[in-house]
Amino acid sequence: MIIDCHGHYTTEPKDLHRFRQEQTKAAKDKTTVPSRASLKMSDDEIRESIEANQLKLQRERGTDVTIFSPRASGMGHHIGDESVSLEWSQICNDLIARVISLFPRNFIGVCQLPQSQGVEPSHSIAELERCVKMGFVGCNLNPDPSGGYFNAPPLTDKWWYPFYEKMIELDVPAMVHVSGCCNPAMHTTGSYYLNADTMAFVQLILSDVFKDFPKLKLIIPHGGGAVPFHWGRFRGIALNNKKPELDEIMGENIFFDTCVYHQPGIDLLTKVVPVDNILFASEMVGAVKGNDPRTGFPFDDTKRYVENAPGLSAADKQKIFEGNARKVYGRLDGALKRAMAA
Amino acid sequence: MIIDCHGHYTTEPKDLHRFRQEQTKAAKDKTTVPSRASLKMSDDEIRESIEANQLKLQRERGTDVTIFSPRASGMGHHIGDESVSLEWSQICNDLIARVISLFPRNFIGVCQLPQSQGVEPSHSIAELERCVKMGFVGCNLNPDPSGGYFNAPPLTDKWWYPFYEKMIELDVPAMVHVSGCCNPAMHTTGSYYLNADTMAFVQLILSDVFKDFPKLKLIIPHGGGAVPFHWGRFRGIALNNKKPELDEIMGENIFFDTCVYHQPGIDLLTKVVPVDNILFASEMVGAVKGNDPRTGFPFDDTKRYVENAPGLSAADKQKIFEGNARKVYGRLDGALKRAMAA
Repeated sequence: MIIDCHGHYTTEPKDLHRFRQEQTKAAKDKTTVPSRASLKMSDDEIRESIEANQLKLQRERGTDVTIFSPRASGMGHHIGDESVSLEWSQICNDLIARVISLFPRNFIGVCQLPQSQGVEPSHSIAELERCVKMGFVGCNLNPDPSGGYFNAPPLTDKWWYPFYEKMIELDVPAMVHVSGCCNPAMHTTGSYYLNADTMAFVQLILSDVFKDFPKLKLIIPHGGGAVPFHWGRFRGIALNNKKPELDEIMGENIFFDTCVYHQPGIDLLTKVVPVDNILFASEMVGAVKGNDPRTGFPFDDTKRYVENAPGLSAADKQKIFEGNARKVYGRLDGALKRAMAA
Repeated sequence: MIIDCHGHYTTEPKDLHRFRQEQTKAAKDKTTVPSRASLKMSDDEIRESIEANQLKLQRERGTDVTIFSPRASGMGHHIGDESVSLEWSQICNDLIARVISLFPRNFIGVCQLPQSQGVEPSHSIAELERCVKMGFVGCNLNPDPSGGYFNAPPLTDKWWYPFYEKMIELDVPAMVHVSGCCNPAMHTTGSYYLNADTMAFVQLILSDVFKDFPKLKLIIPHGGGAVPFHWGRFRGIALNNKKPELDEIMGENIFFDTCVYHQPGIDLLTKVVPVDNILFASEMVGAVKGNDPRTGFPFDDTKRYVENAPGLSAADKQKIFEGNARKVYGRLDGALKRAMAA
């Protein structure tokens, strides 16, 4: 089985965008928010949006299950206040639940959190619990709810601890993933996503957070941002700070996905990062659409790169494609069994 | 000849730090600033600090000339106001000029700019001119004078244009380099430097700045941040934005250095980035001190990695080690000739 641990619902029904625009405008103008009941998204519309896109690509590329969450750039934790973020998160998560009910064998849910600038992460616990009850197996945790100004406490600050406690209690990992960037200096999918990944990694490796939470599991997406390319730099910084080798720090706590869109990048990733810490992912349909004109294949068809990476044994590939995901997402085995039995 | 295009004076005389601490405190407390005349830095002290460090390493590693600028993390453009930044920059640049007068064959100057949050970059023109008159061949341009909050206009904004005009008039390139990070979410040499590099690259490739300034030359240090590792991602984003291939965009305008501290990283860099756009650099003595326990060699001995990179011909290596630097730094040939004749 090939499990893609990083997919977002980026082909949502149109009316969701209409609602969000109205909600955003209302939050800005302090006027009446649109009614949630006004949302018109039929099962047929959802089914078509998936069948023509994510499901089609799963079939074409030969992957089986996508761990699926709301559009990352759409989370918009900097928009409106906590109540706006909560309503929007509930709507987005409920929509993921509907996708999963329509395609239970192809998608497993991961939730967006109702984070909001300056609001304690513990306020996201209730929504995480609600989603886990719906069968979700993880969450996306935004390390920068400001949308590009990086003014939240580091992920190693006690600010986040009550949320980590709940994650461990529920046996769910988090993917560390920012949302859309409202800072004109940074491009959402170009620099902002990767910068947040690199930032998070350095926060974590220089901290004692995994001493406090030995069972905390965090996935840093997009291949770990800049980390594998600068593996020597980060090893040196860790060692100079009296920390162990990165392999040891990552251990059973930090994982990178394979959202790296060219062969030499995946070759480097799989060469320097321990194979036990790499989870297969493509983030399709996502940041980079279309075919690479030099290869003729889609940029984000990362399965091809992993298959062609030199030095990976069949057992290594099995870990990357399936085994590691089953370990990191503690609830995944159960969710898959229920789905296959359905 | 082997030219290291990225070295900072990180072993400064102690009294410089005393002055800066007092200057910073005075700026904060709005009290009397320390007198510049109070600075005690003898030629002997400067000579010893270089001979025991940068010069020793040049000799051990077999490099010839370092393009040398004030400590990047010390520029501190977020500290005090414009007048504080100007005095500090003049002091730091004058110190570089003294190093060069003591070791004219081993070091060539690049200046720090008196940037300050919210102050137009055109205010840095006078200091750039002053330094070029002292024989400097380039400058370090800080894309985030806030020290970690990324609130300056993108490098492609007209805010920067008068400064670019002067750079071109003087035939000097800029290395895009942030300073120390005062944002607790980011680690100066771990995530902040690399994130600024990646940010700058994406700003540039999606802009028309090189149509406006075909002769503008910008060096993005630390191997281009996350860019080579995510080369496919950035190619795809550029192509999807109706831009050409990255090779073409970089052309004679964007260059990466080789401050990447492990062999697989340099292998990737030299594989994906055109050889004409790579400048040899080590940033020693800098972010990562000490030996890599796995190789027994210094992390930042990047000459070794470049020499061992597969697929580079002797001609390629000559470009990376020397030829490209002579092209990018238009005043370098003249400066070297004067130094060697001295």
